[in-house]
Amino acid sequence: MEDISCCDSDKFISKISERLKISEEDLKKGFMRKIITTDEYKGTKILSFKKKLKHIERGTIVFLNDNIEYIMGYPKIRRAMTLYPTLKKYFIDKIVVEEKLDGYNIRIANINDEVIAITRGGKICPFTTKKVSKFLSNSIKILDDYPDLMLCGEMVGLNNPYVSHYYPEVDKELSNNEYENLGFYIFDIRNKETNNPLSINEKEKMLKKYNIPYVKPLGIFDKEGAHEKVRELIETLSNEQREGVVLKDPDMAVEPIKYTTHYTQCNDLSVAFEYMYDLGIDFMFSRIVREGYQSFEFGENEEEMERRALDLGKSILYPMVNSIKKVSQGGTISEDFEIFMDSEEDIAEFVAYLKKLHINFTIKNKEKIDNGIYKVKIGRIYSSTNDRIKSHLNGNLW
Amino acid sequence: MEDISCCDSDKFISKISERLKISEEDLKKGFMRKIITTDEYKGTKILSFKKKLKHIERGTIVFLNDNIEYIMGYPKIRRAMTLYPTLKKYFIDKIVVEEKLDGYNIRIANINDEVIAITRGGKICPFTTKKVSKFLSNSIKILDDYPDLMLCGEMVGLNNPYVSHYYPEVDKELSNNEYENLGFYIFDIRNKETNNPLSINEKEKMLKKYNIPYVKPLGIFDKEGAHEKVRELIETLSNEQREGVVLKDPDMAVEPIKYTTHYTQCNDLSVAFEYMYDLGIDFMFSRIVREGYQSFEFGENEEEMERRALDLGKSILYPMVNSIKKVSQGGTISEDFEIFMDSEEDIAEFVAYLKKLHINFTIKNKEKIDNGIYKVKIGRIYSSTNDRIKSHLNGNLW
Repeated sequence: MEDISCCDSDKFISKISERLKISEEDLKKGFMRKIITTDEYKGTKILSFKKKLKHIERGTIVFLNDNIEYIMGYPKIRRAMTLYPTLKKYFIDKIVVEEKLDGYNIRIANINDEVIAITRGGKICPFTTKKVSKFLSNSIKILDDYPDLMLCGEMVGLNNPYVSHYYPEVDKELSNNEYENLGFYIFDIRNKETNNPLSINEKEKMLKKYNIPYVKPLGIFDKEGAHEKVRELIETLSNEQREGVVLKDPDMAVEPIKYTTHYTQCNDLSVAFEYMYDLGIDFMFSRIVREGYQSFEFGENEEEMERRALDLGKSILYPMVNSIKKVSQGGTISEDFEIFMDSEEDIAEFVAYLKKLHINFTIKNKEKIDNGIYKVKIGRIYSSTNDRIKSHLNGNLW
Repeated sequence: MEDISCCDSDKFISKISERLKISEEDLKKGFMRKIITTDEYKGTKILSFKKKLKHIERGTIVFLNDNIEYIMGYPKIRRAMTLYPTLKKYFIDKIVVEEKLDGYNIRIANINDEVIAITRGGKICPFTTKKVSKFLSNSIKILDDYPDLMLCGEMVGLNNPYVSHYYPEVDKELSNNEYENLGFYIFDIRNKETNNPLSINEKEKMLKKYNIPYVKPLGIFDKEGAHEKVRELIETLSNEQREGVVLKDPDMAVEPIKYTTHYTQCNDLSVAFEYMYDLGIDFMFSRIVREGYQSFEFGENEEEMERRALDLGKSILYPMVNSIKKVSQGGTISEDFEIFMDSEEDIAEFVAYLKKLHINFTIKNKEKIDNGIYKVKIGRIYSSTNDRIKSHLNGNLW
């Protein structure tokens, strides 16, 4: 990313301030404190908000074109630590329960006369943008008809560069015996500037009309007994190795909140402890604590608690020991992902994007399958984990 | 603790600088950055180093008397994450293995014409000072004969206000059916200003001569095969629910290093997760990581790994769920300790000391047993844990 000083944006600053309804002073501070960074997308200068600044969400992206077009970041979804009394206290009357998918958050919008897909942190990802355009080809008219809206959803499946988790429902055959496991489901339609959401009904109607895949409700409950219903859903989802639920007011009058399964807590921990010196310890601690509240709230007996403790212990110990073992045998700890790309140009563009993000990676394999499609295996290298394990195995003290 | 500005020490500063061999500038910075704090002990102003500053160890204490007497902090003991090749690489030829006891580190020295006992962090603890003087009554001549030395040791047992861990060998009958489980073992004799240690032999000879309890070596090994011997000792100690070992060069030509048992890693985690929002997450993470290296190095099979994972999971989950349960039933999370005191004055002095340290506590019980001795039960209250659990149980979001 280019490191342009705030001054280059000076001629825009009063206009940005007006459009985003944030003071020039706050903007200038944002530049100085590197909360706002600058970049370029196909010849247009853009700004990204790396953290929330006043009412501007993290991940907001601003195009410095004539109209100062922008897309607001997706708001943080807060978490219920207990279902009771949290749901009863937080919601108004009814609660719509949607499945929370384990992928990565994307926003799709029409901006600067083009469709782009933006990641949670505010990057225009070339991989995601291409896949979304392809998957949506016949449906993308929605953004011409409603240029003020953005589609917020989750990109899921094995074959993406961020969060690899198998979802059987997104398997697509590319050629003989080659499957791409990738797809997305929209969960919110919002005004791209104000984040103002459509109601659940309006959203469903519109997505059905344009034939766009979306997250279907698992149920609608009165808030009084909802904690019991949600608990049942959570137990089923956990057994099916799925992530959890997002709970919404039918009119979206209050922001959605989330709650996750035992399975996903342990799965997150497995990933964290595989790359133990790279993923933050706050990430680990928060997952562990969720297990405590869930075990308490589900009123587990001795046997159930022991099973949860074993799952918890295994998801911490096993990946850690595997990583140490791997390094001891001369291997390198990396997170591998396999993606499908249409051309050498697309691969080069994505590689350039990863470099710009300062991600340490290596291309492990590249092969042309039928239909001219490329299958690329990229390994993301976790340097701290590799270096520190190596150091301790070589006899260096803590 | 009084918050005296650095200026009060101005008249001493050049003398302190000379005596401690640290520049006046570093000292002044230390005052400004609150690394050096001021206090008073029986009418004499003292300084405490709360962090290491240049070569001055954390826990160093300086008496602002005519000679600027001081006691250097006990040096940080580094940790072997793996036994092999660490021991072979670190040591010269022989390794003396001593047991690492699970109590709190104390330094005993003669200063300002008095015997005092100092905690690791550099506080003159009235409880510890009184107990030490009593236990040592006939042996304390050692500090008159060698006023330059300090005795470094571990105070252990159930009945102390810091680290409660039962050691059968320190049980003492106070009266009918009342036992005080408390004692200490010296592990180093060092020059109190330079930290220069006596060799293991000199230390043993001197402690035997003055009849002072000390940590006896578990073995002396050639460094080549030591990792196997130490592993056997560690497995025995773990089964006996003891903490670990400290490994030393016979001449103390290199600083000691430490290695701990599976038992103590899990026990530390149990304590940490009982007070989950108060004890630092670095504390938790470091214990978890040690389990990974130990399981790897001990070459555990599937069954052994599963047992370790279950222990690990239980020591995390169970105390956390217990704490949540306790708060849900209206209880308060506190760490209770029971100590024996000789008089009301001693109790009052110790209570004043805890208040000065800003420790949040409550006296839960106080009773006079035979011989005029008081048994006092003090509960240390962990406010963050109590408050945050209560908040989530009341339905507040993360």
